[in-house]
Amino acid sequence: MTTTKKPHLVIVGGGFGGLHTAKALKDAPLNITLVDKQNYHLFQPLLYQVATGGLSPGDIAYPLRAALSKQDNCSVIKAEVVDIDPALKKIYLDHGELSYDTLVIATGVSHHYFGHDDWAKSAPGLKTLEDSLEIRRRILSAFEAAEREPDLQKRRAWLTFVVVGGGPTGVEMAGALAELAHNTLRNEFRNIDPSEAKIVLLEGTDRVLPTYPPELSTRAEATLAQLGVTVLTKTLVTDVRQKTVVLRHNDRSDALPAGTVLWAAGMKASSLGQVLAGRTGAEADQAGRVIVEPNLTVAGFPDIFVVGDLAHFAHQAGQPLPGVAPVAMQQGQYVARLLKQRLNGESLSAFRYVDKGNLAVIGRNEAVANIGSLKLGGFPAWLAWVFIHIWFLVGFDNKLLVVFQWAWNYFTWKRGARLIIGDEASVTKQEEIALSPSLTASS
Amino acid sequence: MTTTKKPHLVIVGGGFGGLHTAKALKDAPLNITLVDKQNYHLFQPLLYQVATGGLSPGDIAYPLRAALSKQDNCSVIKAEVVDIDPALKKIYLDHGELSYDTLVIATGVSHHYFGHDDWAKSAPGLKTLEDSLEIRRRILSAFEAAEREPDLQKRRAWLTFVVVGGGPTGVEMAGALAELAHNTLRNEFRNIDPSEAKIVLLEGTDRVLPTYPPELSTRAEATLAQLGVTVLTKTLVTDVRQKTVVLRHNDRSDALPAGTVLWAAGMKASSLGQVLAGRTGAEADQAGRVIVEPNLTVAGFPDIFVVGDLAHFAHQAGQPLPGVAPVAMQQGQYVARLLKQRLNGESLSAFRYVDKGNLAVIGRNEAVANIGSLKLGGFPAWLAWVFIHIWFLVGFDNKLLVVFQWAWNYFTWKRGARLIIGDEASVTKQEEIALSPSLTASS
Repeated sequence: MTTTKKPHLVIVGGGFGGLHTAKALKDAPLNITLVDKQNYHLFQPLLYQVATGGLSPGDIAYPLRAALSKQDNCSVIKAEVVDIDPALKKIYLDHGELSYDTLVIATGVSHHYFGHDDWAKSAPGLKTLEDSLEIRRRILSAFEAAEREPDLQKRRAWLTFVVVGGGPTGVEMAGALAELAHNTLRNEFRNIDPSEAKIVLLEGTDRVLPTYPPELSTRAEATLAQLGVTVLTKTLVTDVRQKTVVLRHNDRSDALPAGTVLWAAGMKASSLGQVLAGRTGAEADQAGRVIVEPNLTVAGFPDIFVVGDLAHFAHQAGQPLPGVAPVAMQQGQYVARLLKQRLNGESLSAFRYVDKGNLAVIGRNEAVANIGSLKLGGFPAWLAWVFIHIWFLVGFDNKLLVVFQWAWNYFTWKRGARLIIGDEASVTKQEEIALSPSLTASS
Repeated sequence: MTTTKKPHLVIVGGGFGGLHTAKALKDAPLNITLVDKQNYHLFQPLLYQVATGGLSPGDIAYPLRAALSKQDNCSVIKAEVVDIDPALKKIYLDHGELSYDTLVIATGVSHHYFGHDDWAKSAPGLKTLEDSLEIRRRILSAFEAAEREPDLQKRRAWLTFVVVGGGPTGVEMAGALAELAHNTLRNEFRNIDPSEAKIVLLEGTDRVLPTYPPELSTRAEATLAQLGVTVLTKTLVTDVRQKTVVLRHNDRSDALPAGTVLWAAGMKASSLGQVLAGRTGAEADQAGRVIVEPNLTVAGFPDIFVVGDLAHFAHQAGQPLPGVAPVAMQQGQYVARLLKQRLNGESLSAFRYVDKGNLAVIGRNEAVANIGSLKLGGFPAWLAWVFIHIWFLVGFDNKLLVVFQWAWNYFTWKRGARLIIGDEASVTKQEEIALSPSLTASS
């Protein structure tokens, strides 16, 4: 029996883009290696549910090895890619190196503090499981701190939660926080009334969900108001200090004491994008995303593809495609198709994104959806959101369990995964609320 | 309307003992404050399932505030107790202080390294959620390290897992590890065969489960052997160094290179036991457990009770009652009854533990049970174990979900919660396997 050596495809990143590339090549005559620094695929759209105690990490993350165990042409390596040599066709890992024939980079983006990286400590973003557990710990610890705080002003600060950024993540976080405070935690404290918690959503433009049609933004703002979220649009953050957010709104500067500040604004390409641009001379946009060719390759490197959030693809709409899961999945599937065609000596026309619509959930029974010319709100949109999200828990054998968990949360208002786990040191660090007289709440 | 000030009962610790004391006093005319340094009740008997990826933390931990939200006479404070003043009837917290009329201490025990606390880093024990996540991370990272390790000897070391201590926890851990390696992970790796993993269970006495009847120990050892666990009895650990366990067995010293060492031996009272003994002059046993009166009070302090693992109660069997959940629950319920009688000016006879039997699970379909004169093994014992454990997920509204999760794991052999989360630094630290020539495996 002779075996001809099959071409080696290396995929870096096991998110929606990378995993769908690999899965769509199930029967292709390729050796595939998927490299990820984590050992799991993460369903990022539900991270905010972990951050607010509705789901456990195990519900929204699934081991990559398990997702690909039945795919004989694919192996998984848990490692971080530190460098790329396109001339030698090699990538360098923190442990060892790999040669490739074709390379797919799908390492996504992280959040961005607009040049204020020092804000990260005070205002964590929500991109990883670790982020979501840290945010969960902060939110729950803030209520605990308020419960034992005798000083009224400090207690009020502990019960103030600021979400920076009115995109889908910010809207979902603010809505879930409001439900947590106003419903789930009701009756659980004796010294404070959690429903007095103040949730403030800050947005720089003139409406939340600025990439959605205006009528859905209006609807979202009304729903948020009903849930008790204070929405401040046209508001910029100029500083995030120890337990205080400094805002600029209508040419006025205000300091808002807040025990918890969450960051849902800004986006920056993962560092491998910069490495790739440096090594290939590819152009990158301001956020560091790699500008790709119509077929998702890097200019001049037909064997290097970039898919998902890291790719800046502007050949279709003039502006880059949004960084959402459906784009990443379709790009992964496109690259898989293209590689199969190449094996047959054929070529494939440019990538085209088929926009099936956008959805953002705001709370129990409340979501907004923009599906083609259809604009949904309220319960129908919420139901669509739930089913689409559960449906796309790719490779998750426990879809059914997540449905049960959701149904359970829905009917009981409980969020059973409200656990404060980990680093006590940072809890203690968090205790300090300094209320200097000049920074008194204007609210 | 006049309100007479109700007596203040302070319970320290929200485990089985503390939580059952509080719950059994639901309608009593008392002000109850439950103090715990965590915000959740932990179902410790299932910790090993989290450590091996079968369940998520949210499945076995439940917020104390939620468990007690409907009990109007009870408030919860998340704090650590640092000191007790029995003369002033006060306890001192890391945040503030509390006065009490009656005090119940139920802070349990942690593991004990027999004077070798430096082993803790190399051989973590399993008492907290943080422990279970750290152990899960180590186990899964060891397989990842083995997959990318070119050196055969080092690879073999990464695939060696040593569990120290053949009590129920050690037996359950070893059985679950064997199932993980030999079934769940099968087909998930390309360079290693996880079923070649070597799981070694070390026990100092002449049989595993030394507190069970000998025939059940024999049965457990046979089952473990079937699962592929190497059981070494009459074996003492004399050193745990970087990736090597030094054993003493039949007067011979052996060094066993092992990527992962888990500690399931030894037990030490929580530090509050020492504080209590110091402040009250109460006697403590060698492990630091407080020796209690027949009614579970501390000698000379009728208003201070100790329940659960921290209590050394030897009035019934001559030797102290075992540190298991049923003892703690019955003691909590006893103290609640006694306090209600006291409110009526009545007294109560001494505490008596009703032993309903012991159970240890070894693997899928395999457990041993000792229920009265009945000794069960195999599937019936396993089924009994599953149902009793799920039944006693006290206050867990999500019992049903855990049943589904179990059924799922049972029928699919999947362990979906196999996530490596957290501290990359310690993963890197863990990478070093030093195989000095003098310490070559004897196995």
